[in-house]
Amino acid sequence: MTHYKLAFIGFGNVGKALARLLLDKQAEIQEKYGITWSAVGIATGRHGMALDPDGIDLEAAIAAADLGALSARPAPAGIRNFIKTCNADVLFENSPVSYADGEPALDHLRAALSAGMHAFTANKGPVVHGYHELRALAEENGVRFYHESTVMDGAPLFSTFRAALPAARLLAFTGVLNSTTNLILSRMENGESFDAAVAYAQRIGIAETDPSGDVDGWDAAIKVSALATVLMDIPLKPQDVERAGIRAITPEQIAAARVEGKRWKLLCRAERTADGVKAKVAPEMVGPETPFYNIEGTTSIVQFETDVLGLLSIIEENPGPHTTAYGLLADFLNAVREK
Amino acid sequence: MTHYKLAFIGFGNVGKALARLLLDKQAEIQEKYGITWSAVGIATGRHGMALDPDGIDLEAAIAAADLGALSARPAPAGIRNFIKTCNADVLFENSPVSYADGEPALDHLRAALSAGMHAFTANKGPVVHGYHELRALAEENGVRFYHESTVMDGAPLFSTFRAALPAARLLAFTGVLNSTTNLILSRMENGESFDAAVAYAQRIGIAETDPSGDVDGWDAAIKVSALATVLMDIPLKPQDVERAGIRAITPEQIAAARVEGKRWKLLCRAERTADGVKAKVAPEMVGPETPFYNIEGTTSIVQFETDVLGLLSIIEENPGPHTTAYGLLADFLNAVREK
Repeated sequence: MTHYKLAFIGFGNVGKALARLLLDKQAEIQEKYGITWSAVGIATGRHGMALDPDGIDLEAAIAAADLGALSARPAPAGIRNFIKTCNADVLFENSPVSYADGEPALDHLRAALSAGMHAFTANKGPVVHGYHELRALAEENGVRFYHESTVMDGAPLFSTFRAALPAARLLAFTGVLNSTTNLILSRMENGESFDAAVAYAQRIGIAETDPSGDVDGWDAAIKVSALATVLMDIPLKPQDVERAGIRAITPEQIAAARVEGKRWKLLCRAERTADGVKAKVAPEMVGPETPFYNIEGTTSIVQFETDVLGLLSIIEENPGPHTTAYGLLADFLNAVREK
Repeated sequence: MTHYKLAFIGFGNVGKALARLLLDKQAEIQEKYGITWSAVGIATGRHGMALDPDGIDLEAAIAAADLGALSARPAPAGIRNFIKTCNADVLFENSPVSYADGEPALDHLRAALSAGMHAFTANKGPVVHGYHELRALAEENGVRFYHESTVMDGAPLFSTFRAALPAARLLAFTGVLNSTTNLILSRMENGESFDAAVAYAQRIGIAETDPSGDVDGWDAAIKVSALATVLMDIPLKPQDVERAGIRAITPEQIAAARVEGKRWKLLCRAERTADGVKAKVAPEMVGPETPFYNIEGTTSIVQFETDVLGLLSIIEENPGPHTTAYGLLADFLNAVREK
């Protein structure tokens, strides 16, 4: 039996779903993997911090409005000090992400890995801005840096290539990876205007107040960058992705596609070139002979072209905080059983 | 650097494709995984045997009409003696399969595992008839028994659950796993009769002279059994699968489906029950809102329902002996890097 002390940075929807999943799977994890765990630290931006070397009650933490009330110690000054003093073996990093530079998550992950903790995140920012640095840091310190939930939630993309497809070279991939644009295009097919469709997506909570991250293709470009950086091992920044959003798609274009039996989808594409990778996010018309045609709403797909298999596609339906949480749990269990 | 001595039973399309892949990937395998290999034995039913502790030239073996010409030793009497004397670390078992009892592959795999060899197969027979026995035998002997290529060729199904999805419980799955029936149904949609479509499938070499294994759903039932046995850990025999083939589908039914915007597919289904698993292979009408609708020709799909993710589908297009061979290579590399 091996015991792991866990720390959490960020304890919103995903952090709480992860805590719930750890509790639900506690007996199974112990029985199947010989692993026990305790939560020794939780740090949040707006709900305080809790530190307890004897273990924080995660049920209570899920319900708590102020985590400070659960703490055995005074809160350290700032998250860097939290990482230094929490004495955890594992850090789950789920602070709010900045796509511009990956901070502060990148800084937290650096600190955790340098202190010899395994570190797992659902934030795309640190992968896009610091993957190779963090991977090297993890190797130096004999720990793992994994990030399954950064693209397509907990669906196994990174881990499949890492653990199931040895000696496979990824040549290209194509995907539908942004659900907001996918939903907007579907609603426009049903006659709604672009603006009305955006307003609907905002109303149901899948689009931000400023929808430009989705509709201008930035979110998709970041996911393409993360996949290319890790799976092709070629650093790629979102600004290096040729990018066109869906603002320019007109009702006439939507109708013209339908006449041809096609649909518009915001496709993500990347392919290896002689000296790197060429990547693109743009609306394309796709026909029913492709697996992209039927991808609706929050469903995502990525189709991989390798040197060893035929086209291999992975589709995930019905994602949510609980599937993102599973990706983080899988990262943890995969990391410690590989060691 | 670790050296592995490889033996092959069966050296037809798949065995030769595996030899080709091993040669093509030799430098990469050495560099990336620190693994070197030599082929010390090849046994076939109709092209003789080769044994050479110093290594058989696989290029020559691929081209050879009689493997005996490449042998450093007289051929042993029978395949059991071949296994005993080849002194390999790894056996790739690709002899012709019997679905009735899994023999002789099952016997070969038992002998290899008992002798301390890792054993890998693309044969569904031994998985359906001996999975739990072979897995236990592998564990006792400190080696691995893997079989990625038994369902959907080299697409990572078994290895994804084994290595990428810890603590995930498979609740149910649905798939289109038999390409012959899929092709026949497509051609019937284009107005061909059942008999003419079967004859076409035979002419292009994807259906057998006796097509009943495919059209009566046996091949699909065997694949369902293999998936349920391994991924749900519940032994399931093909005869326990409720099974209806596609012979009874009439042109009228095909036309009626089209009117509804649907298509007939031979669907494979399994779900956990209170005391085991309920499995079924039968033609069903599917609509374009499902990922099964667009599965054409030799493309396969399986959609997994687990307790931790939304529906997760894996699609493989363009399979062939080279993708089956990749599944065997992946089994080998996964097994030895896990150890």
